[in-house]
Amino acid sequence: METRDILVKLKNGDISVEEAEHYFRRKPFEDMGYAKLDTHRKTRSGFAEVIFCSGKSDNHLLQIFGKLYEEDGEVFGTRASKSQYELIREVYPETQYDEISRIIKIEKTDKKKQGKIAVCTAGTADIPVAEEAAQTAEYFGSFVERIYDVGVSGIHRLFSKLDVVQSANCVITVAGMEGALASVMGGLVDKPVIAVPTSVGYGASMHGLSALLTMINSCANGIAVVNIDNGYGAGYIATQINRLAVKEEK
Amino acid sequence: METRDILVKLKNGDISVEEAEHYFRRKPFEDMGYAKLDTHRKTRSGFAEVIFCSGKSDNHLLQIFGKLYEEDGEVFGTRASKSQYELIREVYPETQYDEISRIIKIEKTDKKKQGKIAVCTAGTADIPVAEEAAQTAEYFGSFVERIYDVGVSGIHRLFSKLDVVQSANCVITVAGMEGALASVMGGLVDKPVIAVPTSVGYGASMHGLSALLTMINSCANGIAVVNIDNGYGAGYIATQINRLAVKEEK
Amino acid sequence: METRDILVKLKNGDISVEEAEHYFRRKPFEDMGYAKLDTHRKTRSGFAEVIFCSGKSDNHLLQIFGKLYEEDGEVFGTRASKSQYELIREVYPETQYDEISRIIKIEKTDKKKQGKIAVCTAGTADIPVAEEAAQTAEYFGSFVERIYDVGVSGIHRLFSKLDVVQSANCVITVAGMEGALASVMGGLVDKPVIAVPTSVGYGASMHGLSALLTMINSCANGIAVVNIDNGYGAGYIATQINRLAVKEEK
Amino acid sequence: METRDILVKLKNGDISVEEAEHYFRRKPFEDMGYAKLDTHRKTRSGFAEVIFCSGKSDNHLLQIFGKLYEEDGEVFGTRASKSQYELIREVYPETQYDEISRIIKIEKTDKKKQGKIAVCTAGTADIPVAEEAAQTAEYFGSFVERIYDVGVSGIHRLFSKLDVVQSANCVITVAGMEGALASVMGGLVDKPVIAVPTSVGYGASMHGLSALLTMINSCANGIAVVNIDNGYGAGYIATQINRLAVKEEK
Amino acid sequence: METRDILVKLKNGDISVEEAEHYFRRKPFEDMGYAKLDTHRKTRSGFAEVIFCSGKSDNHLLQIFGKLYEEDGEVFGTRASKSQYELIREVYPETQYDEISRIIKIEKTDKKKQGKIAVCTAGTADIPVAEEAAQTAEYFGSFVERIYDVGVSGIHRLFSKLDVVQSANCVITVAGMEGALASVMGGLVDKPVIAVPTSVGYGASMHGLSALLTMINSCANGIAVVNIDNGYGAGYIATQINRLAVKEEK
Amino acid sequence: METRDILVKLKNGDISVEEAEHYFRRKPFEDMGYAKLDTHRKTRSGFAEVIFCSGKSDNHLLQIFGKLYEEDGEVFGTRASKSQYELIREVYPETQYDEISRIIKIEKTDKKKQGKIAVCTAGTADIPVAEEAAQTAEYFGSFVERIYDVGVSGIHRLFSKLDVVQSANCVITVAGMEGALASVMGGLVDKPVIAVPTSVGYGASMHGLSALLTMINSCANGIAVVNIDNGYGAGYIATQINRLAVKEEK
Amino acid sequence: METRDILVKLKNGDISVEEAEHYFRRKPFEDMGYAKLDTHRKTRSGFAEVIFCSGKSDNHLLQIFGKLYEEDGEVFGTRASKSQYELIREVYPETQYDEISRIIKIEKTDKKKQGKIAVCTAGTADIPVAEEAAQTAEYFGSFVERIYDVGVSGIHRLFSKLDVVQSANCVITVAGMEGALASVMGGLVDKPVIAVPTSVGYGASMHGLSALLTMINSCANGIAVVNIDNGYGAGYIATQINRLAVKEEK
Amino acid sequence: METRDILVKLKNGDISVEEAEHYFRRKPFEDMGYAKLDTHRKTRSGFAEVIFCSGKSDNHLLQIFGKLYEEDGEVFGTRASKSQYELIREVYPETQYDEISRIIKIEKTDKKKQGKIAVCTAGTADIPVAEEAAQTAEYFGSFVERIYDVGVSGIHRLFSKLDVVQSANCVITVAGMEGALASVMGGLVDKPVIAVPTSVGYGASMHGLSALLTMINSCANGIAVVNIDNGYGAGYIATQINRLAVKEEK
Repeated sequence: METRDILVKLKNGDISVEEAEHYFRRKPFEDMGYAKLDTHRKTRSGFAEVIFCSGKSDNHLLQIFGKLYEEDGEVFGTRASKSQYELIREVYPETQYDEISRIIKIEKTDKKKQGKIAVCTAGTADIPVAEEAAQTAEYFGSFVERIYDVGVSGIHRLFSKLDVVQSANCVITVAGMEGALASVMGGLVDKPVIAVPTSVGYGASMHGLSALLTMINSCANGIAVVNIDNGYGAGYIATQINRLAVKEEK
Repeated sequence: METRDILVKLKNGDISVEEAEHYFRRKPFEDMGYAKLDTHRKTRSGFAEVIFCSGKSDNHLLQIFGKLYEEDGEVFGTRASKSQYELIREVYPETQYDEISRIIKIEKTDKKKQGKIAVCTAGTADIPVAEEAAQTAEYFGSFVERIYDVGVSGIHRLFSKLDVVQSANCVITVAGMEGALASVMGGLVDKPVIAVPTSVGYGASMHGLSALLTMINSCANGIAVVNIDNGYGAGYIATQINRLAVKEEK
Repeated sequence: METRDILVKLKNGDISVEEAEHYFRRKPFEDMGYAKLDTHRKTRSGFAEVIFCSGKSDNHLLQIFGKLYEEDGEVFGTRASKSQYELIREVYPETQYDEISRIIKIEKTDKKKQGKIAVCTAGTADIPVAEEAAQTAEYFGSFVERIYDVGVSGIHRLFSKLDVVQSANCVITVAGMEGALASVMGGLVDKPVIAVPTSVGYGASMHGLSALLTMINSCANGIAVVNIDNGYGAGYIATQINRLAVKEEK
Repeated sequence: METRDILVKLKNGDISVEEAEHYFRRKPFEDMGYAKLDTHRKTRSGFAEVIFCSGKSDNHLLQIFGKLYEEDGEVFGTRASKSQYELIREVYPETQYDEISRIIKIEKTDKKKQGKIAVCTAGTADIPVAEEAAQTAEYFGSFVERIYDVGVSGIHRLFSKLDVVQSANCVITVAGMEGALASVMGGLVDKPVIAVPTSVGYGASMHGLSALLTMINSCANGIAVVNIDNGYGAGYIATQINRLAVKEEK
Repeated sequence: METRDILVKLKNGDISVEEAEHYFRRKPFEDMGYAKLDTHRKTRSGFAEVIFCSGKSDNHLLQIFGKLYEEDGEVFGTRASKSQYELIREVYPETQYDEISRIIKIEKTDKKKQGKIAVCTAGTADIPVAEEAAQTAEYFGSFVERIYDVGVSGIHRLFSKLDVVQSANCVITVAGMEGALASVMGGLVDKPVIAVPTSVGYGASMHGLSALLTMINSCANGIAVVNIDNGYGAGYIATQINRLAVKEEK
Repeated sequence: METRDILVKLKNGDISVEEAEHYFRRKPFEDMGYAKLDTHRKTRSGFAEVIFCSGKSDNHLLQIFGKLYEEDGEVFGTRASKSQYELIREVYPETQYDEISRIIKIEKTDKKKQGKIAVCTAGTADIPVAEEAAQTAEYFGSFVERIYDVGVSGIHRLFSKLDVVQSANCVITVAGMEGALASVMGGLVDKPVIAVPTSVGYGASMHGLSALLTMINSCANGIAVVNIDNGYGAGYIATQINRLAVKEEK
Repeated sequence: METRDILVKLKNGDISVEEAEHYFRRKPFEDMGYAKLDTHRKTRSGFAEVIFCSGKSDNHLLQIFGKLYEEDGEVFGTRASKSQYELIREVYPETQYDEISRIIKIEKTDKKKQGKIAVCTAGTADIPVAEEAAQTAEYFGSFVERIYDVGVSGIHRLFSKLDVVQSANCVITVAGMEGALASVMGGLVDKPVIAVPTSVGYGASMHGLSALLTMINSCANGIAVVNIDNGYGAGYIATQINRLAVKEEK
Repeated sequence: METRDILVKLKNGDISVEEAEHYFRRKPFEDMGYAKLDTHRKTRSGFAEVIFCSGKSDNHLLQIFGKLYEEDGEVFGTRASKSQYELIREVYPETQYDEISRIIKIEKTDKKKQGKIAVCTAGTADIPVAEEAAQTAEYFGSFVERIYDVGVSGIHRLFSKLDVVQSANCVITVAGMEGALASVMGGLVDKPVIAVPTSVGYGASMHGLSALLTMINSCANGIAVVNIDNGYGAGYIATQINRLAVKEEK
């Protein structure tokens, strides 16, 4: 037991009480009262904490943005409104905002992208979710290929891009309406497919629930699903997968 | 108004009271107390009444089977159990039963099949529903091509049969699990696709509800959907469509 | 195999490499980056690509509208807002817009309508969806009869129009609330009924889901269902059916 | 206040303590430990307590049956199995059982039926629920007309019986699958329609939920709905309505 | 057969062709193109046609309002917005509008109210639906007692009004949230209870669906349910019931 | 029977008619026509009546607020909008309003807090619901500890506060998205956990329904659940529990 | 920090390495390979681990039963089948089994019951769940009063027992069908009500989901809900609450 | 274009018509009439085709089993019943069957396992699904660690195994009831978590749907979900991920 080692060392005077105490201390976080920022997260998991901006008060958002920027020298937020961007830009003029993905960020300029993730959409209306996925993956160091508007109602469009898709370590498939693209993709590639249902559709699409059910019930293998419109989550797990593969390429 | 014509003719003695009465009589049916058989249905719609056997008492089933046989010289029942077949066979030894589709029938031997309907399934487990559709269409005079086990997880299997599918007047697509085959089919053919969700699957397939939602939300055009496992309904409407096309071929 | 024929011909010099290559080329599309327009679609299926306007950015909508207009000399969009119409009209003053159906189009003037499709509604609130269906069918060359406000709460209104309905090749039935009109219609005509549930209603209508379930569970034969409020889809498949019948009439 | 009157009378000696106490006593019931039979119910509401047999232990069922029989000289149970009937018949040989409705009863022979309730079904499979409704209404003194198998897929069958339906004080409409009969009925009669969805159907009928939704969303007026398969509840409220009307006929 | 009688009389000259034609003519309606007003409805059912104002265009609403007013000398509309009222008032200054129930009407002044209907609510937020029910019943000639805010969380408030409730011919029970009031009411009165779930509530109330389910599953007898927020429907059927009882009181 | 005692005493002249009448009188309430304020509630249950402000008309809200303030010298309302606050403040300038919890109140200044309730949230977006719970509990006399933003995605944050949580008499756990915090909490404390699902989340969170299901299905013991976003309900029942424990501490 | 104290003491030789190690060791459990029995649970929470028998293999059940018996000298299992009982009885003849609650146990004979919990049911069919709750609470040392069959369809039965209910520290309310009893109870007592929906019912009761929704949406205060049929969970949390109150009574 | 290269080579005589034809031929499959076995699948994706045994007729199962065995020298089937095993064993005595996972297989003996996948369950009832996942992964060449019964109601059990979990390339988390384990796991590891909801539970667990929703809505990052009880699917995608990582270790 590692615990015993520490204790024996302490007993023997090999380490101080402070050093031993540090070992037993819970993993730290920044307690801001209303929030507890997981500032050691990057060390632990290789992914810095990210801000889900939607619904945050202006005051809280600014403080959290600042604290994380200060900690890492870069910061990344999802689901930001344009007015939140304007608020932050006043304090941090270097902030960037993308209206389609609604991502707000300050990013270091010398990051390089590794491996390959393909991000595909069934239609053009799925692009905002796909961009959230793609830019998340890029922020975390993945190289991303975008293949948009290749839904199954005109499946020859997908086939013309098949070599790009098949060369990726992980394929993110973003689709609303009936979400059939994920199943077709699962039958065409031999790498993990992360399926993202979107709330695109109308009528019985039930804001993405139908697409979610389609994807969960897929008859194809090698597919796993994240929440409706959860581009960020897809970009995150795809990056985890891509990193596993990338180590090998070095 | 046609009504006025009849009345004027009656007044003038051009037609008898009986003839006029016949015009105004409701369309008739055979009242068996517990059931009202729509015996004039064939004249009206070109389709004889069919027996939904499931849940009928032995006594009622036998009487209805006999009455319809007597009326038309042939009779067709769906969702029949094997024991129902054995019951009927004792009285009508010429009865035929197919264990897969669970169809029971006595069929005239000189019927010819016209036009073409393609019946496709995603998997082998969808075959019972597909056979109900195919045999219904055949009973009502359609020529049927069967293309089974061509689901999207191995989509090259469908492509190898595409010419057959594309030559049909109507394509019945039978699929459970996520039901994505219907959307792909809709993008590949230019004829109406009748989609039949099946209760094949498990987990979140919810006994076919997920496949139904997939098909209803299809991003492809030219698809309409019938109830889960309703092979009979698909065979019926496909025959209606096929008949419209067949007239032209003469 | 046709493939072999091509290859043999090439080998023998009967055709050039370019001709052979053309055969093997994927079916083409117009890649606009954010969208891949299926411009060969009309040749393939007899239906030109249509624009689903809702949710498209102004810039994308204009470009796609223009590209398709240029391709075919006419163009058709559904779910367009009035402001989208105003945007397009500035560039293409010949554009027409119908506020009820929300259809935007430039249509050739010399098109003739063939066959017959009946479009029926249960109530007056279902008319916008019915008009989307009717105008879609007309754009694609079908002759359409409108029979509105004939719901089952006053069923004599439907009976007074029964001859019109019964003479159509296909009947589109548009109904919200409980959607019972589709079942009644299925029992009265011998042609395919395409049922369109609408989101008209309140309370437990659940934005059309109840009507959808009613229609899918219909006890009548010859009914198939499209998505809630999907007038376009109904007009499309009804046209496919109508075309099959029309060929015969020549 | 009536309370004050009683108290003043008691104070003045106009009534005894026992009489006053009787006034303030809670309405009584028979406490059998595991059950509390509402034996004064008949006096209060004009309807004796009825036994829901399903799920009761043999011992409890026998005791409750006996207690209610003793109290009223007749007794009525719903959802009884055949084996429950055999159990009871051994002790009370005069017990009657109907296998279709699953009603068990001992009924006084001199009861007369008043007014009129029409009980209609869409199909033959709805008859068990209809019989539960009809026999409940008869037990409680209503005259009942049965009109079975008049569903909307062959609506002329209903029209041939319209005069019978229209002469009733209340119409019970029993239908599974899509349940459209209730809406049609509501448009044809001017008396209250009690709609009973049944669990008859398959696929997306969801054990009667679809029919329930259809009926609740009915576009016709004068319809109210009871639980799926709740023939007893329909027979009960229809009898309440019939009694209101019957008083007038005397 | 009545039909035969008519025909025989015509043949014999006892009646004219016009008289016979009148008999066979479908029940008439006013065809306004976009709508088919059921103007004979009052004769048939004793209830004039009512306007569901929500979603109607200004133009259509005005025309229908005028047509019905002209026909009957009074007119009644539900779910009217204030701006619809202002529109109509300009043409028909005698129009009355109630902001709570959203009912718009011109009503004859000499109508008398008969019988008794009790309208109860669980809370104050249910009052708009209750008023729609109450005013509908009053418009159609019922005498109405209102008992509001007597929900089960303080059930002594209901008990203090029990005599009023118990003296009605029909009790309309309006409740949102969990809708338990209907069951309690069913156990306390011996007349039909029409239960109206409302969309009042939050969280898992799912816009009234939870209350609807509670009411449909009620363990009490004598309860039937109408759609969520359907005060009009409740007032209508309660009036039908009240009329049956009222005849007797004459 | 207590009733008999009263009656005997009255008979014997030990008490007056008025005293006896008081005993038999229903528990009183303040009848305001549109509302029936349960003013004796505090005596009965130890909790004064509280105003659910949302949806109340300005006029009604002011009157009810005033009536309850007059009765108790303090008053408490939930789900108040800022404009409702401004309305009330004009009449009662001492009114306090908290924008986060949306609680409006006038509170006596000398109240002391007893026992301990811990209120925990999974994320920062759950704080408004948590504050409604916390401030409700405080208003009713509980001492409250707040532990916010300790969701399971960084569970070490919860562990650092475990001693605070474990020392409470009752733990309110507020969580949206997947609501897993409640199960983890149930495994860590030996006091009742009141779980509050929130509507925080997106996609398949279905406005809190997913979190509700998670909590209801918890594999941990000692958890019971209130409605989505029902902070008030959680604060109320936690206070009931806390009071049971507090008595002992005296 | 307690951690520091331990470390300082170790450094100073006040405690041994073993003692310190014991402090830092994770809480132990019995690892049986396929299961990890939480044998220190009783020390931690005051509740011994309980066996959910349903679905366990005979072999595993016997081993776990034995291990827990050995640990505590008594053992308690829920959802046991009769055949599981017979299996266990062969090895442990002192085992007791109750067919109604399906509880299996060996219980120490000298346990005394404290405080008071009332367990109420709406109907007789809810008794199995109620007994699971009652016997769980008794096993964990609570005194339990049973009040069965007091549903709201005859609410006077509940009122006759109100004093018993009102004297309890916690009221468990068990109800299926529409579950309205919980709301009524919440309005009548000032102690926490733990509501248990049951799967009793049919049709739209959806196996208890309707009752669950009713209870979660309750308009009354002081109610929290556990899973459908989860008598054990209700007995557990009610015991936690009862224990808080009981301490005071000493 | 590769296509052009082939054509040019053919033209130039560098390759034969047969060679060129082979290139253009669709990927082949074994057409068995009722099934189309994807026999080239292993070459394409590195995973041989697997048999979903449930629902297959004896005859079909035997033929497919034999065909795949013949093709690869090993064969793997899921969801096999014991009687299916007995059927197959008669023909292939070397067949192995595991009753818990219901996996049937003949496996080559010299396969070696690479990388590491951790398979965790919340309870013992989740083990059958976990074993399906684990054995699938092992069959496809992954090394698997099993960590069972570490659900969140006793979370210290998981912490004691954290180092094992954290050393895996992918963590499969199998949980029923409320499924909270997945979220906790996502917060503790930095590798992809594949979450498998199971149908274990009762009441509102709705056969796994609640667990599925919990997992889809997880607040933790790095989680993707497969269908309820889909152990095979989880084992498959985890193997894909593990293979990506394994390449690097060489």
